[in-house]
Amino acid sequence: MSENDIDILIRLIAKLPGIGQRSSRRIVLHLLKNKESLMLPLASALVKTAESMRICEECGNLDNASPCAICSGVKRDSSVICVVEDVVDLWAFERGGIYRGKYHALGGTLSAMEGRGPGELNIAKLVERASRPEVEEVIIATNATMEGQTTAHYITDKLAGCNVKISRLAYGMPIGGELDYLDEGTLSAALKARQAF
Amino acid sequence: MSENDIDILIRLIAKLPGIGQRSSRRIVLHLLKNKESLMLPLASALVKTAESMRICEECGNLDNASPCAICSGVKRDSSVICVVEDVVDLWAFERGGIYRGKYHALGGTLSAMEGRGPGELNIAKLVERASRPEVEEVIIATNATMEGQTTAHYITDKLAGCNVKISRLAYGMPIGGELDYLDEGTLSAALKARQAF
Repeated sequence: MSENDIDILIRLIAKLPGIGQRSSRRIVLHLLKNKESLMLPLASALVKTAESMRICEECGNLDNASPCAICSGVKRDSSVICVVEDVVDLWAFERGGIYRGKYHALGGTLSAMEGRGPGELNIAKLVERASRPEVEEVIIATNATMEGQTTAHYITDKLAGCNVKISRLAYGMPIGGELDYLDEGTLSAALKARQAF
Repeated sequence: MSENDIDILIRLIAKLPGIGQRSSRRIVLHLLKNKESLMLPLASALVKTAESMRICEECGNLDNASPCAICSGVKRDSSVICVVEDVVDLWAFERGGIYRGKYHALGGTLSAMEGRGPGELNIAKLVERASRPEVEEVIIATNATMEGQTTAHYITDKLAGCNVKISRLAYGMPIGGELDYLDEGTLSAALKARQAF
């Protein structure tokens, strides 16, 4: 058994979220058994995506151009900005096709536990965007967790000086749940019933 | 959002064992956030391992040479062959460092459910190896599952003509469990208390 190559690969895969040493070994074996159909295509997809992806300097979305397709899309409503914690949450909205405005991905939440302060989130840019004359509403769509709600309150304070309506998703989503776990129906209902903050 | 690159990557990662669409999206986002430290090293480790790995024509192990380091190792006892279902099980023995003989990886089990017959397993080569004069014992270390035990019985029949002692792991391992899940102590005890088949 080649200690080096396989061990490096097992160690790297075990760093992915939700994967431990054991799962990583099983995955590596599965990859080695499917070299042509999976292992090499995966390697080239990783390189291709790593090279092509840009972080949108406008909203924090991932795309192969900055500004991203949503920020530069003429069919998207520029008067509304939906603030999400992370890009996976933006993907959840887009999968549903239930929202036609713009987004703003914060890149996480404030977290005393993990020592994450406002400086590490994409907040200054949000305030700048919300101050533009075309923006009428900011929808805060952080998760219904303690940290998501703390972050929502912090953002609301920061946006106080901007001339925008601030709303949040309706409590159609289950308390304690995470946005990316919702089915599209619940997500859609929560979006429609949004309330003034 | 670039549909193509990211979607291809998400689809490929969702093909790995134990990973679904949701986990795959989270993993892709994690990768994109750690491009230099994880995503690109993973891609090159995949290519490097895919290129360097060979299936040992002797025992079915994965190594960067065939025959593998274990088959060609002068310190390994050539008189004993330990038959395992898959390479992960061989790794489990090697992690413990509790066995100094050779191995034979079958590449799976017989399975009526999944339509896997003897022709798809690495059995003919095992019979050939077991017929060599230096081989004195074959230890059958398939999983303690229905399919593992069926396979063990099939192999015992096939080895009947060879002049070797056939043993199996002791039932120190929990019935219904799988070999790769055992702690080293249990595995070691089961190896030492192996019984004549």
